Amino acid sequence: MFILDHRIERDSILIAELPLSQLRLQNDQRYPWLVLVPKVEGAKEVHELKVDEAQQLLKESNVVANALAIVTGCKKVNVANLGNVVEQLHWHVVARFENDLTWPGPIWGIGEAECWEQKKRLTFVESLLKEIQSNQEIKVFPA
Amino acid sequence: MFILDHRIERDSILIAELPLSQLRLQNDQRYPWLVLVPKVEGAKEVHELKVDEAQQLLKESNVVANALAIVTGCKKVNVANLGNVVEQLHWHVVARFENDLTWPGPIWGIGEAECWEQKKRLTFVESLLKEIQSNQEIKVFPA
Repeated sequence: MFILDHRIERDSILIAELPLSQLRLQNDQRYPWLVLVPKVEGAKEVHELKVDEAQQLLKESNVVANALAIVTGCKKVNVANLGNVVEQLHWHVVARFENDLTWPGPIWGIGEAECWEQKKRLTFVESLLKEIQSNQEIKVFPA
Repeated sequence: MFILDHRIERDSILIAELPLSQLRLQNDQRYPWLVLVPKVEGAKEVHELKVDEAQQLLKESNVVANALAIVTGCKKVNVANLGNVVEQLHWHVVARFENDLTWPGPIWGIGEAECWEQKKRLTFVESLLKEIQSNQEIKVFPA
């Protein structure tokens, strides 16, 4: 059975269910930062997923990254699985800007998260989900 | 035409040609750190690749990550495309250990690279390529 790690649950907000993954917004308004958590019991590494699961994760990542780039107009999208702190497989999709806090360095482990202001968050999530849904490549169930 | 970015060429060593990507070893013996560079003109983002190219990159990443985990016995594999400094699409596959320099933080932008000692490098590359070739899922042409 898939059980979400309590640290992922604490640090991010479920915004939609995708066929393979939970789509979550990291609760840190310093970056437009999404996390895909494949609903696969015990998954830790992308290369340990079944072939069809890995391909679906890639597909979901690409749809989300594309929507994120369009909605934010970012300079670069960073995608990654690190998992050094929280082992449960989670896939980062982050919009980066030349004037963001840690550009051009990575975002992980820097300073303290700033929780999203609610109105700002709802507006961002609405735009993002609309863009993802317009793609029609994957089924999206808003949370 | 695919042209390798001069910074990637300077900082890493070609160890094999895969169907889509150059497989390169980052010239930094602080980490077992591989870089896949898809031979696709102008590629910057995974989500901008054609579907078959993205799936092939995933396949090559998974084969390389699996071999790297077996050869090194690492705690975790980190996979990522950042590209904030060098825009050309390059995909990191890095073996991480609980006693490595920056665990559990990310590896990028920390300190100075330590060039591989040649004998150590050749031994590592030989083991890695043997493991990748044993997989038989992708064609490998050692450099």
